[in-house]
Amino acid sequence: MRQRAGLRLLLGQRLNNLISLTRLMEFEDLVQRYDKSRMVDLILSSPLEFEEYFEKYGEVSLPPSVAGVRMPGEWKSIVVLGMGGSAIVGDILRSYLLDRVDVPVEVVRDMRIPAHVGEGALLIAVSYSGNTMETLKAAMEGVRRGAYLVAVTSGGMLGQLAAKVGAAIYELPSGRPSRTALPPMLAAILRIVEAAGLAEPVNAREAAAKAREVVEEIRGDPLGSRPARIAAELDGKVPLVYSYQPYSPLGLRLKTQINENAKYHAFYAELPEADHNEVMGWEGGLAAPYHAVFVRGSKEPEELTVIIDYWREILGERGVRASELRSSGGGRLSEYLELMVLVDFTSYVLALMRGVDPTPVVTISRMKKVLEDRLHVSVHLRREMEELLSRH
Amino acid sequence: MRQRAGLRLLLGQRLNNLISLTRLMEFEDLVQRYDKSRMVDLILSSPLEFEEYFEKYGEVSLPPSVAGVRMPGEWKSIVVLGMGGSAIVGDILRSYLLDRVDVPVEVVRDMRIPAHVGEGALLIAVSYSGNTMETLKAAMEGVRRGAYLVAVTSGGMLGQLAAKVGAAIYELPSGRPSRTALPPMLAAILRIVEAAGLAEPVNAREAAAKAREVVEEIRGDPLGSRPARIAAELDGKVPLVYSYQPYSPLGLRLKTQINENAKYHAFYAELPEADHNEVMGWEGGLAAPYHAVFVRGSKEPEELTVIIDYWREILGERGVRASELRSSGGGRLSEYLELMVLVDFTSYVLALMRGVDPTPVVTISRMKKVLEDRLHVSVHLRREMEELLSRH
Repeated sequence: MRQRAGLRLLLGQRLNNLISLTRLMEFEDLVQRYDKSRMVDLILSSPLEFEEYFEKYGEVSLPPSVAGVRMPGEWKSIVVLGMGGSAIVGDILRSYLLDRVDVPVEVVRDMRIPAHVGEGALLIAVSYSGNTMETLKAAMEGVRRGAYLVAVTSGGMLGQLAAKVGAAIYELPSGRPSRTALPPMLAAILRIVEAAGLAEPVNAREAAAKAREVVEEIRGDPLGSRPARIAAELDGKVPLVYSYQPYSPLGLRLKTQINENAKYHAFYAELPEADHNEVMGWEGGLAAPYHAVFVRGSKEPEELTVIIDYWREILGERGVRASELRSSGGGRLSEYLELMVLVDFTSYVLALMRGVDPTPVVTISRMKKVLEDRLHVSVHLRREMEELLSRH
Repeated sequence: MRQRAGLRLLLGQRLNNLISLTRLMEFEDLVQRYDKSRMVDLILSSPLEFEEYFEKYGEVSLPPSVAGVRMPGEWKSIVVLGMGGSAIVGDILRSYLLDRVDVPVEVVRDMRIPAHVGEGALLIAVSYSGNTMETLKAAMEGVRRGAYLVAVTSGGMLGQLAAKVGAAIYELPSGRPSRTALPPMLAAILRIVEAAGLAEPVNAREAAAKAREVVEEIRGDPLGSRPARIAAELDGKVPLVYSYQPYSPLGLRLKTQINENAKYHAFYAELPEADHNEVMGWEGGLAAPYHAVFVRGSKEPEELTVIIDYWREILGERGVRASELRSSGGGRLSEYLELMVLVDFTSYVLALMRGVDPTPVVTISRMKKVLEDRLHVSVHLRREMEELLSRH
């Protein structure tokens, strides 16, 4: 009896191995067919890249003054400027520091900065290309008002501005989609707040350990992995992502990665706020085939567990399925890195399943061209920069 | 020839009057059938209510100390606590003050407050019922850390807490859904920042003039009004609302009002950020019958006009229709009040069209009961409050 059970187990394992192998071949075939720029390599090397860049950025130091303004003895606020793939790192920083830093952390996704941003503000401008209109305008306004600028960029006009006003530059690896540069961006921003004396240094190797394990799991059986199973469930549905602090930025990341990689609508809301309005959407008639995904941490307040259980009940009553991506523990940074791999790979597999190349974002590129053609944005930005610099 | 044209005009007008009259009767019929608590009266009296409460709250003053902590000579930050219908007023304040106040304004929709909230923070707790778990927990933590509390509430535990620690209370009219109390909430919060010396007083009568005009338009032909036409377009679709600063809170309000009043899913995103990710959702296959609504101000930077025009092009290419709710001018507050009437009435008509009573929010009420049953939330909150007060 025990022998037969053993045999069955052995056969089962072989069968599983065989299934994994078939799926591995199928995956490679999909990658070659759709992922022309091999985004997969960037996603699966993200924990390693985070470690590498964290090491590298440890060598950058903050100059005593920027654009003639001395580094403040005491910071009044941290303000991160960025758009899209370059903004999410600000959200992560904000959540990471939520209960750790004595000054407000604000993320500005706009051309205009709030009135309070001036002297005493640590102004971190994140623009992968260095040419993001909104970030550049906001950064210049900040410098004008005496904020202390730091640039995170691969170059472009932001790189030039930073060099000319004497700001520190955390140089990002160039030539790839900005959203795949999140690991170096995260390394940079953590090093910046460390150098500014606003946060303790972290152990990058330890923080990336869980994420590296997840990468190994995925490599072993990409199409059988947790993220791939969730991607399969999302295809043809309208994904609604829910998360809560301090994990919210990774929930939002899933939404935006689905948008950009899979060229597909997805929506995001934060708990417990969504309890007070969005939850009502499940009460009436549904106008679309929704699918919910909860992005969770390894630990959460009891209230949130009860709330999510209740949501699952309601979703069940409406015949709506729910999946979850959950980190497995470790420190907060470890959870972010683990969820980043899970979230990014989910959106990536969804792209393959939908038969689209995850890399190009034609509609965004076209919009930049439209802004250029109709408003000559880069000419104006360059002129604004010259004017600003002529004053220094 | 001219006579016949005149006759045609006259007949046309009579016909229009007749249509309006029929629609007026139809509207009254719908109201009586579905709107059992007559939310319509609250929506259409909102400009007037704003004026009244602005007058009334001018008499409340801020005490020199709260819970033994003196009012700061200089504020470090304004932090608004609230959830759902009580949080949006914080967003409005933040946008209203964006380029007018020298300190960061933060809206916290959570049980936990960021580490920086302590002495020097103006902590405005907004809870219509006074019993919102998240707001109460956050308010108590703020008081513990020495923040200066002000309460905006109709009573409940927040009212008790405020009374016991000597905080100012801006008392809201009771006995109605919290989301209909936005006009008095807005009046309160403007008076609070005025009393704290953080903003100039406003002319409430002037600010409400446009909104009063919009109300008159709606009263004349409710089902033929702009909001009603948009509601008709939204029925059966998945509404995606887009807006930009400083109007964003009204865009978000449309989403949440559709959720709560019409019991219907709707989603919101902010421009220009949505250009960098959400816009990609239009590139691939659509999993739902979407309908876009742009909530706009009377004036906007050129860049945003170009961006919205581009969105309209893309939507057109995908066969997706787009509507817009646009304010007609005046100061920023005037635009908010006007958009509030337009947005609220849109969600209200959608509720009638879908045949649901806009007032009850059963799924939210059930959740509060679940939290009570499983975690005895109010017992814990009361105990926490007693402990906090015993220290003062």
